[in-house]
Amino acid sequence: MSRKSFPAVKNDLLLRVCREEGPVAETPVWMMRQAGRYLPEFKALRAENEFVKVCKDAHLASEVTVQPWRRFASGELCEVARSLPWAEVTAENALDAVIVFSDILTIPAALGQTLTMVPGKGPVLTPAGDAFRQVSPEDVSRFVEDELGYVFDAVFASRMKIHSAVPVIGFSGAPFTLFSYMVEGGGSKTWAAARAAFYRRIREDPHFLKPIESVVAQYLIGQYDAGADMLQLFETNADELPAEVYSEFVVPGLRRIVAQVKQSRPEAIVALFAKDYRRLEDLADFPDVLGVGWKDDIATVLAKIKARGLSKVPVLQGNLDPAVLLSGDLEILHKVKELKIKMKNEKWIANLGHGMMPEMNPSMAKTFLQAVKSSL
Amino acid sequence: MSRKSFPAVKNDLLLRVCREEGPVAETPVWMMRQAGRYLPEFKALRAENEFVKVCKDAHLASEVTVQPWRRFASGELCEVARSLPWAEVTAENALDAVIVFSDILTIPAALGQTLTMVPGKGPVLTPAGDAFRQVSPEDVSRFVEDELGYVFDAVFASRMKIHSAVPVIGFSGAPFTLFSYMVEGGGSKTWAAARAAFYRRIREDPHFLKPIESVVAQYLIGQYDAGADMLQLFETNADELPAEVYSEFVVPGLRRIVAQVKQSRPEAIVALFAKDYRRLEDLADFPDVLGVGWKDDIATVLAKIKARGLSKVPVLQGNLDPAVLLSGDLEILHKVKELKIKMKNEKWIANLGHGMMPEMNPSMAKTFLQAVKSSL
Repeated sequence: MSRKSFPAVKNDLLLRVCREEGPVAETPVWMMRQAGRYLPEFKALRAENEFVKVCKDAHLASEVTVQPWRRFASGELCEVARSLPWAEVTAENALDAVIVFSDILTIPAALGQTLTMVPGKGPVLTPAGDAFRQVSPEDVSRFVEDELGYVFDAVFASRMKIHSAVPVIGFSGAPFTLFSYMVEGGGSKTWAAARAAFYRRIREDPHFLKPIESVVAQYLIGQYDAGADMLQLFETNADELPAEVYSEFVVPGLRRIVAQVKQSRPEAIVALFAKDYRRLEDLADFPDVLGVGWKDDIATVLAKIKARGLSKVPVLQGNLDPAVLLSGDLEILHKVKELKIKMKNEKWIANLGHGMMPEMNPSMAKTFLQAVKSSL
Repeated sequence: MSRKSFPAVKNDLLLRVCREEGPVAETPVWMMRQAGRYLPEFKALRAENEFVKVCKDAHLASEVTVQPWRRFASGELCEVARSLPWAEVTAENALDAVIVFSDILTIPAALGQTLTMVPGKGPVLTPAGDAFRQVSPEDVSRFVEDELGYVFDAVFASRMKIHSAVPVIGFSGAPFTLFSYMVEGGGSKTWAAARAAFYRRIREDPHFLKPIESVVAQYLIGQYDAGADMLQLFETNADELPAEVYSEFVVPGLRRIVAQVKQSRPEAIVALFAKDYRRLEDLADFPDVLGVGWKDDIATVLAKIKARGLSKVPVLQGNLDPAVLLSGDLEILHKVKELKIKMKNEKWIANLGHGMMPEMNPSMAKTFLQAVKSSL
């Protein structure tokens, strides 16, 4: 694949907000976990296809990737969307990006843990303890291509399927998040075993997660080369650590990964989602886009970042509490309006503070998108 | 019952740290959820007695309350402890308080929801939706006495059982935490339904939780009268809310509850545990003791509090990550030492940043207590 053969992205609002110097009048919007179980069309496809199969089959993965865009695409941009059974297409509910359908656990799976999706429980990995297979520096490129190339195919297929109508977002789990799943063997309510293992490991070797950084960076680069314009690094679980541990042992790795990606692909837009880390402003100097979970007030985060006097302030992304979508249309409109007031004249990508949830439905997403796009 | 008939507390270190003006040389210590499933003696008792029965039977509840103290009591203070089968008594591993064995869900249960403990799942309530039984202001005292008096009996029995050797801590769930359990019908990984319901309810009536405040205050007062010297208000779940919502809709209620308790029982020591609330320093002007979860750096919290220039700085309590106990003795010693350095010459009650966990064992608790009490 060569990025030169791709048609330019038609609705490049998201990219312009990230790349242009001055303000951009319109606010781009997408939703974390926008392809997923709140969509009946996703559930229909999943009913016939096992989770890991969907991830690994470029046709199925790209199909799921574009499902929310078909439903919420901009009418002007893609006539085909209007004719599809699930389409609810207007200019007012347009999604400005798709995110490739994949899983944060692709890397642990590539490293040899078996990944399955257990209904009602979520992803389950065969536990790796606190040690996992190491990939030597000279083998990283080959390893990533061999073991994770299916994700690049899914990115490429997604971009083709939407004729570059909107940007495709690629993503990877960040080192601590990967480690936490590897230790716990899946999701956890407390992540206590993961933290306990992390404390032990960093006492032995403060850099024990370093080898995984190149894998993550190379994995993001591969997705860029396959057609993803924005790459999001999900450090979703490290906010469970004490802030001072996060600061000392997690941030440097995030910084190195972003640097590695930007150095080899300067045009790639790199977004970092560190959810509820208590010192988000400390992360403001290296990614292009910085996600904000729902517990922080985005205006406070922005003020703290501005107080740093950086030469470049990252675009903020977020931070509507996903639970607002469950509380009714009126509440969604109110809260989005509050956010719009806070982020008026600021560079902002509207999004949730975390992912869409299975107990949601498309109508909630539609209200959110309309609230962002309309002049409330 | 009359507090005047109680013998004075013998080991009053915890009380002195809270009441005296100047610094106190020694650090008092206890552990949230110190009576619980990490103790074999607790499991032995629970094997023969259903959870709610243990809470409601003053003999059983007080037995469980004093179990960790028997195991980790100060040898000088209570000869009887030494002769008990579980005792591991030295001066170096002394617990400086017991906390009455009860549940945060006693109030929802009193309001008519049925509480059961489901193995492997935790407490389960019959769901109340987002509306719950209101208690009229004139009925609060009688309601609390009738429906929650069994907790007062447990406090009284606990104090008698230890001959006032150490202070007994009473506690209550705070309004949002109670509401969140009432809505979800038990624990939740995301608490999204609770937040969604909360947003709806505060839009209709910003003061909808106010009626519960007097119940909580009266419940704490009743525990004080029964012999508890410190009363801890657990607002464990409100940190899932956006900081600005917490600040506007949760803090005023906490403030009113503490004021009501302090006004009617000025001698009572009131502790507030707001876990990971992002603006802990904003809570510093009303409780005597302020708990700090494990994600905040306690030194940073203290510095922010001091920057407020209050006439009285609360005693801080916490903030060791409970997961440290799972990572081995060496790690416990290291981290407690770090904490002791941070809190040197400060008023501090050593504790975890959250509760003891079922996957722990008494040896971990013992190491923690020894680390606090020894001169590391």
